[in-house]
Amino acid sequence: MSEGTQIEGLWAVIPAGGSGTRLWPLSRRASPKFLHDLTGSGRSLLRMTWDRLSPLVEDRFLVVTGAAHEDAVRSQLPMLRRDDVVAEPSPRDSMPAIGLAAAVLERRDPEAILGSFAADHVITDVAAFHAAVAEATAAARAGELVTIGIEPTHAATGFGYIKQGPGLDLEGAPHAHRVVEFVEKPDPEAARRYVESGEYRWNAGMFVVGATTLLELLAEHHADLVDNLRIIASDPRRMQDLWPSLRKIAIDHAVAEPAAAAGRVAVVPASIGWDDIGDFASLATILGRGKTRSLEVITGAEDIVAVDSTGLVAADSGRAVAIVGLDDIVVIDTADALLVTTKDRAQDVKQVVDELTGRGLTELT
Amino acid sequence: MSEGTQIEGLWAVIPAGGSGTRLWPLSRRASPKFLHDLTGSGRSLLRMTWDRLSPLVEDRFLVVTGAAHEDAVRSQLPMLRRDDVVAEPSPRDSMPAIGLAAAVLERRDPEAILGSFAADHVITDVAAFHAAVAEATAAARAGELVTIGIEPTHAATGFGYIKQGPGLDLEGAPHAHRVVEFVEKPDPEAARRYVESGEYRWNAGMFVVGATTLLELLAEHHADLVDNLRIIASDPRRMQDLWPSLRKIAIDHAVAEPAAAAGRVAVVPASIGWDDIGDFASLATILGRGKTRSLEVITGAEDIVAVDSTGLVAADSGRAVAIVGLDDIVVIDTADALLVTTKDRAQDVKQVVDELTGRGLTELT
Repeated sequence: MSEGTQIEGLWAVIPAGGSGTRLWPLSRRASPKFLHDLTGSGRSLLRMTWDRLSPLVEDRFLVVTGAAHEDAVRSQLPMLRRDDVVAEPSPRDSMPAIGLAAAVLERRDPEAILGSFAADHVITDVAAFHAAVAEATAAARAGELVTIGIEPTHAATGFGYIKQGPGLDLEGAPHAHRVVEFVEKPDPEAARRYVESGEYRWNAGMFVVGATTLLELLAEHHADLVDNLRIIASDPRRMQDLWPSLRKIAIDHAVAEPAAAAGRVAVVPASIGWDDIGDFASLATILGRGKTRSLEVITGAEDIVAVDSTGLVAADSGRAVAIVGLDDIVVIDTADALLVTTKDRAQDVKQVVDELTGRGLTELT
Repeated sequence: MSEGTQIEGLWAVIPAGGSGTRLWPLSRRASPKFLHDLTGSGRSLLRMTWDRLSPLVEDRFLVVTGAAHEDAVRSQLPMLRRDDVVAEPSPRDSMPAIGLAAAVLERRDPEAILGSFAADHVITDVAAFHAAVAEATAAARAGELVTIGIEPTHAATGFGYIKQGPGLDLEGAPHAHRVVEFVEKPDPEAARRYVESGEYRWNAGMFVVGATTLLELLAEHHADLVDNLRIIASDPRRMQDLWPSLRKIAIDHAVAEPAAAAGRVAVVPASIGWDDIGDFASLATILGRGKTRSLEVITGAEDIVAVDSTGLVAADSGRAVAIVGLDDIVVIDTADALLVTTKDRAQDVKQVVDELTGRGLTELT
């Protein structure tokens, strides 16, 4: 398949959730990271996700987001039709969200293939991504639950890994392999072994699977959840009363791990320049690719005075931001809150949000 | 003399000038450091200077400041009478400022002793300061140009030093010694030698001298300057035309150094907890006295969330300021500008002001 060719029957499902706590104060509960242009592209991460997928699916999109974000999502993606957005009354983790999308899609098209791609990830090699999705779709048509496994570029400890088994020899999916197991985020030593072995891929949470296949896999352990999702899909008025009772569970635990243990999951390995922008260190790495010891700017370059400094800066408040003599510094200046930390400590930004919450300053979180 | 006893004939001259560039963005050209409460006392440095001196001089004050700051000075010191403020049309360094004060004072009292104390220094042991001023005044009455020499507490490289000679055995000034010479800010090795020798004191720029004596010493090398200062003192309307033509020179070069070389300067050594708050590192040291590895707060403690951090913070904008995992950090958050640096690089803040000036952003400097 050449880049940009439509893939008939494939629907893009975009879970647009998660608060992005580790990107505070840019990302907030009321304005999560997928709504922001973090990479200086002029487009939000959500819009970039849509732009990346639309050559494959044309207008076959389903965005699943919190009710609080529906207006913002529609404002950034005005091409979405009324039924293209599923608004969750409350967050119940990824399985109810993607499961409901599957239940909605199987009613539209019993053969529908669902490709689930998070709204807040970065992919720099779009052609390679398209090729991987095409293979994954072919494998999904053969009945597999397919994940796209990212070729590791380093021994990351912030991602889960996928252990890859033998090749599957599926038509249209020459690189698809059996998945042996999904493994949790490793410690540095385990991560090093995984990467050196050549048998592991990063789990980017990208799934391609027949909508009905997904629900059947889910029903094996969570039949009641599938029943309720199909009721809501057939009668959206039931959302308000049924949704709060749904089991809060991630798709990994509900389906992917048990299905892998049963030998029913495939992986398509891919090198696509992927990152989940998990924290400011990750964002600094993305923006600084190919450079050494640079000071990367998210916004407001004209307001920044930097002397002998490297790291990451957002000057988002219109104020002058001066940084003198700091390496790997992170300075995020917004209208109502300022963060100063280092790339090494970027994961601990969550502690600030916890502290603000503890002080009752939820308007800042 | 016990603390707080009036010293008859002593006039306190307070030069309130200097932009405090190294304390940007708290200190600005339009609002220099002496106008700010930097030590959390609830009072500005200027007001603290006044409070420290008033037990000695009652209402015998003369504040010399830039015309641009006269209103702010009067607002902070509402007890000043019309003639208690000398407003310089433009900055011409310390000699014209203090020299004009001397010319004004000798007209009021031919026996006037002038004590010049900067508006932006910190002194923590006020009783010891009062005792030193009393001795210095006694020595000044005996015709000496007297400086108060600070007992060094460490091998500072940011101050000039005073080399102390033999004792003078003056009545009322038992600790007064001859000054051998004033020396410039030393390198670390020289500073170490100075402090180990026990013969050197820090030059805090505090002079006590008969008003007429000062003008006579000045006249030896700068007779025209003295003439012009006496003309302005006798007819303040001449200020506007004469002031811009006055030689721009520091009192150290104009009087203190040549007088020391001629054996006419005395020093009263003193341990008074003095600091000139030359930069944010100095301020952090003052605020953190007696503590180890603390995070000192200038303003806005309730807006700060700090995790594993030490250094100095001002949260002066009302915004939340979060700092994670940084040691010896300096974060100064104001309404229109933010500074992030380290105690080690505190001297280089000046480069930021230079850069802003170069960009034409003088409203921020």
